[in-house]
Amino acid sequence: MAGSVFGNHFKITTWGESHGKALGVVVDGVPAGLNLCEEDIQSFLDRRKPGQSKFTTARAEGDKVEILSGVFEGKTTGTPISMMVRNADQHSKDYSNIMDKYRPGHADYGFSEKFGIRDYRGGGRSSGRETIGRVAAGAIASKILKEIGIEICTYTKSIGPVEITSFDSSEISKNPLYMPDAKAAEKAQVFLEECLSKKDSAGGIVECQISGVPAGLGEPVFDKMDARLAQAIMSIGAVKGFEIGDGFLVASAKGSENNDAFEMKDGKVSKKTNHAGGILGGITDGSPIVFRAAFKPTPSIAQLQHTVNEGCEDVDIEIHGRHDPIIVPRAVVVVESMAAITVLDELIMNMSSKLDYIKEFYS
Amino acid sequence: MAGSVFGNHFKITTWGESHGKALGVVVDGVPAGLNLCEEDIQSFLDRRKPGQSKFTTARAEGDKVEILSGVFEGKTTGTPISMMVRNADQHSKDYSNIMDKYRPGHADYGFSEKFGIRDYRGGGRSSGRETIGRVAAGAIASKILKEIGIEICTYTKSIGPVEITSFDSSEISKNPLYMPDAKAAEKAQVFLEECLSKKDSAGGIVECQISGVPAGLGEPVFDKMDARLAQAIMSIGAVKGFEIGDGFLVASAKGSENNDAFEMKDGKVSKKTNHAGGILGGITDGSPIVFRAAFKPTPSIAQLQHTVNEGCEDVDIEIHGRHDPIIVPRAVVVVESMAAITVLDELIMNMSSKLDYIKEFYS
Amino acid sequence: MAGSVFGNHFKITTWGESHGKALGVVVDGVPAGLNLCEEDIQSFLDRRKPGQSKFTTARAEGDKVEILSGVFEGKTTGTPISMMVRNADQHSKDYSNIMDKYRPGHADYGFSEKFGIRDYRGGGRSSGRETIGRVAAGAIASKILKEIGIEICTYTKSIGPVEITSFDSSEISKNPLYMPDAKAAEKAQVFLEECLSKKDSAGGIVECQISGVPAGLGEPVFDKMDARLAQAIMSIGAVKGFEIGDGFLVASAKGSENNDAFEMKDGKVSKKTNHAGGILGGITDGSPIVFRAAFKPTPSIAQLQHTVNEGCEDVDIEIHGRHDPIIVPRAVVVVESMAAITVLDELIMNMSSKLDYIKEFYS
Amino acid sequence: MAGSVFGNHFKITTWGESHGKALGVVVDGVPAGLNLCEEDIQSFLDRRKPGQSKFTTARAEGDKVEILSGVFEGKTTGTPISMMVRNADQHSKDYSNIMDKYRPGHADYGFSEKFGIRDYRGGGRSSGRETIGRVAAGAIASKILKEIGIEICTYTKSIGPVEITSFDSSEISKNPLYMPDAKAAEKAQVFLEECLSKKDSAGGIVECQISGVPAGLGEPVFDKMDARLAQAIMSIGAVKGFEIGDGFLVASAKGSENNDAFEMKDGKVSKKTNHAGGILGGITDGSPIVFRAAFKPTPSIAQLQHTVNEGCEDVDIEIHGRHDPIIVPRAVVVVESMAAITVLDELIMNMSSKLDYIKEFYS
Repeated sequence: MAGSVFGNHFKITTWGESHGKALGVVVDGVPAGLNLCEEDIQSFLDRRKPGQSKFTTARAEGDKVEILSGVFEGKTTGTPISMMVRNADQHSKDYSNIMDKYRPGHADYGFSEKFGIRDYRGGGRSSGRETIGRVAAGAIASKILKEIGIEICTYTKSIGPVEITSFDSSEISKNPLYMPDAKAAEKAQVFLEECLSKKDSAGGIVECQISGVPAGLGEPVFDKMDARLAQAIMSIGAVKGFEIGDGFLVASAKGSENNDAFEMKDGKVSKKTNHAGGILGGITDGSPIVFRAAFKPTPSIAQLQHTVNEGCEDVDIEIHGRHDPIIVPRAVVVVESMAAITVLDELIMNMSSKLDYIKEFYS
Repeated sequence: MAGSVFGNHFKITTWGESHGKALGVVVDGVPAGLNLCEEDIQSFLDRRKPGQSKFTTARAEGDKVEILSGVFEGKTTGTPISMMVRNADQHSKDYSNIMDKYRPGHADYGFSEKFGIRDYRGGGRSSGRETIGRVAAGAIASKILKEIGIEICTYTKSIGPVEITSFDSSEISKNPLYMPDAKAAEKAQVFLEECLSKKDSAGGIVECQISGVPAGLGEPVFDKMDARLAQAIMSIGAVKGFEIGDGFLVASAKGSENNDAFEMKDGKVSKKTNHAGGILGGITDGSPIVFRAAFKPTPSIAQLQHTVNEGCEDVDIEIHGRHDPIIVPRAVVVVESMAAITVLDELIMNMSSKLDYIKEFYS
Repeated sequence: MAGSVFGNHFKITTWGESHGKALGVVVDGVPAGLNLCEEDIQSFLDRRKPGQSKFTTARAEGDKVEILSGVFEGKTTGTPISMMVRNADQHSKDYSNIMDKYRPGHADYGFSEKFGIRDYRGGGRSSGRETIGRVAAGAIASKILKEIGIEICTYTKSIGPVEITSFDSSEISKNPLYMPDAKAAEKAQVFLEECLSKKDSAGGIVECQISGVPAGLGEPVFDKMDARLAQAIMSIGAVKGFEIGDGFLVASAKGSENNDAFEMKDGKVSKKTNHAGGILGGITDGSPIVFRAAFKPTPSIAQLQHTVNEGCEDVDIEIHGRHDPIIVPRAVVVVESMAAITVLDELIMNMSSKLDYIKEFYS
Repeated sequence: MAGSVFGNHFKITTWGESHGKALGVVVDGVPAGLNLCEEDIQSFLDRRKPGQSKFTTARAEGDKVEILSGVFEGKTTGTPISMMVRNADQHSKDYSNIMDKYRPGHADYGFSEKFGIRDYRGGGRSSGRETIGRVAAGAIASKILKEIGIEICTYTKSIGPVEITSFDSSEISKNPLYMPDAKAAEKAQVFLEECLSKKDSAGGIVECQISGVPAGLGEPVFDKMDARLAQAIMSIGAVKGFEIGDGFLVASAKGSENNDAFEMKDGKVSKKTNHAGGILGGITDGSPIVFRAAFKPTPSIAQLQHTVNEGCEDVDIEIHGRHDPIIVPRAVVVVESMAAITVLDELIMNMSSKLDYIKEFYS
């Protein structure tokens, strides 16, 4: 499983599993000279913290990050930054009811087949806790992007059948579901309570807008901006769909509707519309990047389910414990982090696209 | 633009632009001992050949492939396989009406911003002809997969508003739109004629089913099977959305609906349903992999459009010449090729997942 | 500095600097099912531990390793293994005499030019302590290789002018210089005492023999076994030369002398001699791999030296503190570790070289 | 054998074997805006052309290069540059005396073991002709480096026992052995004639000096400048040793002798001596990079040799045909090419080392 490294220049290596000693990330390729402290990371991690509402698990996870290397006198030195979060509570509870059964909707069976061994405690490496490393790295990427004038706004677009109908970015952090529409957030909460009462769970859609991105980023033909974003986002657990701009709607659109006309605006090349979501031919066009990710409902539900055990017998399974009825709110910051990491990586890759750039740099 | 390499073990490097001398691919990491001849490649390339119907451009492109290396006495030797297709016709036509204008929906502006130079002849590297290398490599990957028992079936699921309502795989190659539903294919043709008459174009959806995939493929957490497929497919020009299994529908599903129950069937672990599209936690679960890609309408339309030129002036643009009113049919084999390349790469990566495998191999 | 990742399948990411909080490594791609505990790692780390003799620094560095992830119930799970060693003593001593001066023979100036910032405490990332991560990862690689029947024997071949004249592998661990020749070890100790008394330091050569390597490993043309070993070994601080088999002597040899005749021996293809050092055309030939690395003398010497400071002034520098007069003995295990990591990585890469292998694996 | 790709940003993929249809390279990541024509490449390829003297094979190999993509109107466009050389003469001669025997000193046995198949015609992929792709790519890298003020001077330092004792760069291209010392070149020719008359061959050393390299290049800890150079150079067939600066001599030097004192010179930080060969701690220090590669004697000699055949029988082998008695002269340009590729790649990697660089670039 040498799949825990992502990125070319801003390269992250994540590690850790749900009930291991700790989880973390090594970020290689962080440029020197960035002011960085643990609080920069912590504020990102806190956005994925559980226990913030009744829709997120109540486990007391402190998730305090420690920066172990790569920062000297408050500044990054250009060397790898290692960050770690200790698992506060590794006391294994009783897993006897699930340890030899494949939970529906989970990766248990695949892991067993692949490795011949499975860490049954809370999903092991396939747990949502795996994203701690992503978010810690994303905090650094986001901070760098901000210095360049790139801002990322990520939020819940829909939960089950409840979709936002208005957009007020100041609302996002005011409700536990991270929706930019207070009314929708209320409706969604009612819907989630219903799910909970029925021992069921819900899915939803996360949307991300990245503004301030210069035109020209993206490396055709395989490392196009949208292709790399797709890998980054689809690699997050529970994501089953990714779309950019108008996304799946383009399939039923006409060319005359879908093409965005270019125009001059305030002395700059811009587009009258943004059906493309800021990316044409895999390269940014200067408009905001807009993409969405579809998250499936939490697979751990309290209902009795049918499955198979490691002995290849048909059995029933009942998953105990408190689980979030929805993955989306805590995933918002994960999506934002992966977007930041990807955009920054492409941003750096683009710096050698012209010979003139290189000559000027070394003159 | 060091973005033309894809894959870890089965590694392809594509090259070439629309009106250059030739296009091609180098495939590194092909295992030795595969019977391979040019006809194996040609039959794949012919599926993306233009001029097959009135909905695909009539340009006389022979697209004859030549294998330049890596095959000896009819078998692959384990060394890189270089394949090339000469561009039959490089006589540049008159591009004066578009050479300094950014075509809406195309990558012209991004390329100009990135490289300070743009090959205005037929889109250069951002042309659909770029996919020749992908398809040639895909032909090899598909042939290997077939020997392992993995079959890929790819087809047009919808064109504009016309979606298939039945599935007969034998129909796919019988209509020029590669639809598995003869009636839908007819309707779609009527719809496309209408688009043509209005100087407009249409989008559509390609679906891909991969059967015979063993459980356990995919490398968490960033090289998960679905994440790599997403990158592979989104890197194809004009794709704006990717989804696996139920895709975006999961956002409004309940956990109790979306979870696939495991069951024993014919002595094998299987799933009662396949909402997951064959992938759980980024690892294959033994069910068929099912994914879809949304293609936007051909951006080159004959209507007068508004845009901007390289001198930053608002101008009109009229794109002459014959263009396909729909990208989808010719893209079907491209999607299949990228899927084959990705699955094969993951298949090889998985071979070292257990110590026992390695010990047995070297015993 | 995204240069802290090495390997394709067995992929290590090291981090940490001399006087940071900790140092460590994440090892991605460890196959599942290996018995592994901290003692396996500790025994390797202890071989690079300082304070073992008067020729290695007396600082009290415990260097106790902690395994943070990837091991469950005593076995590797296939997920990344994160290992960490806390720096016992981060109390910065007084660096005022060197903090703004470029130490001759050190990387200070290069780091300053590259990053605009320099961690002057003990060399930061360019310190020998950086190798802790390499050795921890090497312990795992070595353990896996051993299970496949591959053994690595590494030792000091020469120190200054003192070269071994006999070889007894059981001697290696009996003297603090790791020489397989007791008499040479004694002479070398006398020589080193002389160096110490003159405030000077000495270089030396480390030799490595890898036996049990199957023929066929190595991936032409850039990832040949010797090319990857060269990168791995030259990446160790203070190494200025690398040679395989007869090495630089081949330059003055005749073809008739240098060619190793093949012959059948005990029913196996073997070679009468091993001038090639076990590698022909970048691929192993079944004979033991033999290579050497030349280490320069410790650059930190107590003599007064001339240099330049960050203000671009010519100045004198006097480096206080206890430093090893020789790097070689503690580097022996580092060389062995990098060799193990490289050979294991190539071993895994080779598993997909034939189509028949892949077909058999998935049948 | 997915080992035919080298480089991170300036990324080359070589392909082709001795008696295949053609050989070539795809160079990905060439910055846009470089003036480039086939003559730029041809002049490099001509330096490795055979038949230039009696010490290089007389086969009539035209080796005319064709640029197939990536150049438009005389300038690079930023897209991959594909270059190809057709094999003029593929008529297979009679290989019956060697086709099932493992030639001593060659990679035959390793290839057979690895791939189960071997292209016995002229060594296939392990032939020296494989370097055509490297040299074509090196021509581009060198041209870019020149524009930045980096010049590479490569030459033969020794042939068998004959070493240069003077250095006149203008002499290098005046003798067929590429030695910077006319007298040594004469002596070496006498020596080589002797070798020829005895059906024997000779080895030698190539030295390379790279001037104008800015301080700060190299990415610790695994992609250090010297580590990457080592991989690049050791990947060339027949190289058995690599050393930088004083190389193996450092092993017997004292620290006080080996340390290079820094000093201010003409307002710049420089070093009084250059024992380090321009690289400290893996990062360039502004002094010229100096390295050497040891080449073994041509393994194909006309003497009767002992070996083994594919049927595992002890047999004699007699290798017919004309072979160079020395590899070194034709390898000079190969070494220079690999050095150029590596330095350029590191040069680009360094552009993101400081946050200030990135901010300035995007401001």
